[in-house]
Amino acid sequence: MSITLYSLCGADLARPFSPHCWKTVMALRHKGLPFSERPLAFTAIPSAEGGFSKTVPFLRDGERLVSDSFQIALYLEEAYPDAPSLFGGEGGQAMARFVEAYSQTTVHPIVTRIALKNIHDMLAPTDQAYFRESREKLLGKTIEEIAAVRETAIAALPEALKPLRHMLKAQPFIGGDGPLFCDHIVFGALQWLRITTGSVHLADDDPVRTWFERCLDLHGSEARAVA
Amino acid sequence: MSITLYSLCGADLARPFSPHCWKTVMALRHKGLPFSERPLAFTAIPSAEGGFSKTVPFLRDGERLVSDSFQIALYLEEAYPDAPSLFGGEGGQAMARFVEAYSQTTVHPIVTRIALKNIHDMLAPTDQAYFRESREKLLGKTIEEIAAVRETAIAALPEALKPLRHMLKAQPFIGGDGPLFCDHIVFGALQWLRITTGSVHLADDDPVRTWFERCLDLHGSEARAVA
Repeated sequence: MSITLYSLCGADLARPFSPHCWKTVMALRHKGLPFSERPLAFTAIPSAEGGFSKTVPFLRDGERLVSDSFQIALYLEEAYPDAPSLFGGEGGQAMARFVEAYSQTTVHPIVTRIALKNIHDMLAPTDQAYFRESREKLLGKTIEEIAAVRETAIAALPEALKPLRHMLKAQPFIGGDGPLFCDHIVFGALQWLRITTGSVHLADDDPVRTWFERCLDLHGSEARAVA
Repeated sequence: MSITLYSLCGADLARPFSPHCWKTVMALRHKGLPFSERPLAFTAIPSAEGGFSKTVPFLRDGERLVSDSFQIALYLEEAYPDAPSLFGGEGGQAMARFVEAYSQTTVHPIVTRIALKNIHDMLAPTDQAYFRESREKLLGKTIEEIAAVRETAIAALPEALKPLRHMLKAQPFIGGDGPLFCDHIVFGALQWLRITTGSVHLADDDPVRTWFERCLDLHGSEARAVA
């Protein structure tokens, strides 16, 4: 069987940037599973695989289609139990939901505010129109209004990463001595920021930056090659 | 062997309030281990058990002395492997460090700002002097200055609990279907707030409040009996 990952891209197919898709790329590499990635533009998602999912990532594994980055990780853990675990047991599977909630409610809103205009500018014209309309409706502000307070968002980022920075005093990864899916979750958010804006906007000596670099080094630095 | 837990109290021995000690109480109940709790005043800690630890909780289990709430949980998990797990595997043990870091850096500073004067007022006179001096030095403000902005701290609490609230859409406990030590960690912070101020300062319909009530109900509602 072969695995196909449907992810997200802008005008440049070689720079998939979605945080959720990066979680899945890292999960697949973690499991050591070969796959082909098929990056889609925002407006191409609804028609892929017969309209299976409104969002990416989604994945075809033989006859099976699975959407949502967490559900995909659960699927991979169950379907490939002999490959390295993504959760390290049932407790880790549950707590990864907490890490996901932290990333989603604390890191994502800040990355959105920093990267919104960059993301817009990366898209092909049709997708730009879709992106502007949907995001401006969601955020209640224009892309340009959000870009105007970009520096405030950049300044808020280190504070949002305080829990991770504090934890890194005790261990090198959220998963302990090595990374687990919980690391891929927060990595996804910062990789999104890095690819869309060219920087993670953290000081060189920030332990979170050092952890992020460790994540970029995983699996033959594949994630570092996309910039 | 019998277990003795050294915890923290104010003038009233029946109202131990330390967040870290509550984590350990919940961990011991979780493991189903009988223990006797010996609450100490702040200034009595350094002379207990021959000056073993400057902080509580610490625990004597037969010949063994262990300090620090996380180290105690690790010790209990190893020493009592047949009792219900506190971590649900290695991944859960690692991720509990992230939950601890979250609670410590996000929830604790807010609880401190809400409860500081209440805690001071609960203490015996000698401890009040110690508490005032050490806390005012640490925080760079007088207890009264911090009490003056108490309402601002109360208003900041729901936002700090956003990751937990978001996660509760997916599962009833941070540990999944049932509580694990990760739940006891955040519970400890809110139990500290509840005992010292008489309230967790959350709306009745806040899912975090409902989760907290579920935790209070554990082990025959023992934690609810202290108020």
